[in-house]
Amino acid sequence: MRPIGRRPGNPDTRNDIIKSARRLFADSGYEQTSVRDIAAAAGVDPALIRHYFGSKAELFRSAVGWPFEPDAISERIIEGDSRQIGTRLTRVFLEAWERPDSRAPLLAILRGAATHEESTALVRQFFQGQMYPQLATQLAGPDSELRVDLAMAQLLGIAYLRHVLRVEPLASTPADELIARVTPAIVAHLTPA
Amino acid sequence: MRPIGRRPGNPDTRNDIIKSARRLFADSGYEQTSVRDIAAAAGVDPALIRHYFGSKAELFRSAVGWPFEPDAISERIIEGDSRQIGTRLTRVFLEAWERPDSRAPLLAILRGAATHEESTALVRQFFQGQMYPQLATQLAGPDSELRVDLAMAQLLGIAYLRHVLRVEPLASTPADELIARVTPAIVAHLTPA
Repeated sequence: MRPIGRRPGNPDTRNDIIKSARRLFADSGYEQTSVRDIAAAAGVDPALIRHYFGSKAELFRSAVGWPFEPDAISERIIEGDSRQIGTRLTRVFLEAWERPDSRAPLLAILRGAATHEESTALVRQFFQGQMYPQLATQLAGPDSELRVDLAMAQLLGIAYLRHVLRVEPLASTPADELIARVTPAIVAHLTPA
Repeated sequence: MRPIGRRPGNPDTRNDIIKSARRLFADSGYEQTSVRDIAAAAGVDPALIRHYFGSKAELFRSAVGWPFEPDAISERIIEGDSRQIGTRLTRVFLEAWERPDSRAPLLAILRGAATHEESTALVRQFFQGQMYPQLATQLAGPDSELRVDLAMAQLLGIAYLRHVLRVEPLASTPADELIARVTPAIVAHLTPA
């Protein structure tokens, strides 16, 4: 006999909801996406979303995390010749935006960060808690954190113009050409004067 | 006798509404700001906002324009020694974000652009319709528009980290120091290889 009460989540249904939520948050941002929209896209009853996730904010937290392990990505950037950190940072960052599976959650976070404190905190925490301490200790000079800021501002600005505003010609420049163009700017930022 | 029907707008009340709308759109973004919030902040009845502006979208259009004349700002950047365009662009852009009266509408536009098509269009139009044709013709080389994109990505990314995410140490670096640090990157982008 099936037990009465809170059912364990069906992993397929739960995944369908998360996938739909991720796509809709990415396309429209947090504010403009309703639980009802996500339910419709996933083909489930809105009540099921509340059953699995509680609230829209909790669904956002479950669906929209970083599409990678922050520690693993920091390692990929930091390991190896320290003079190549700028080159690796540029490639890892911009390539994450090119893959559709990681672009969707990154877009959701970036769109969300502009207006939704949950996303803002996620981005700020990644910068200040993960990326910075690790990157900055690899870089010489007392102003290494400001130099990381300027490099990240360049990369984030490119993601914003290319994927959110879709400004041309940046939006349709091939990724490899873009990486080649941007790398010297990032290396210059990360190299002490 | 006072005529019946649509009253002419009282310029003071109208200005109060516009000021409150500008501040709330800047603080919270388009989606999270309601006509009711704006009415409360301006100390007027929500019906009066609908009377003056029709809809929230029309109020946004009236309240959140560029805090400068795009043509005038382009002129300030372009006029003079063409080798100094990068220096002037950096200063004009970053200083506009430092003045509270222009920062509020710029924040509203940047926050809005992430999720709200009206803002996205405003930013894209400024880039592609105003800034680019004028800047790009002053710069040599077949890739001048891409170089303007990379420079604008750097500047926009700094505004985003400094004023939206408030990432440190960028958020509290004095403006003049920041301008001095960023200028070489912008000049490098705008100078053909």
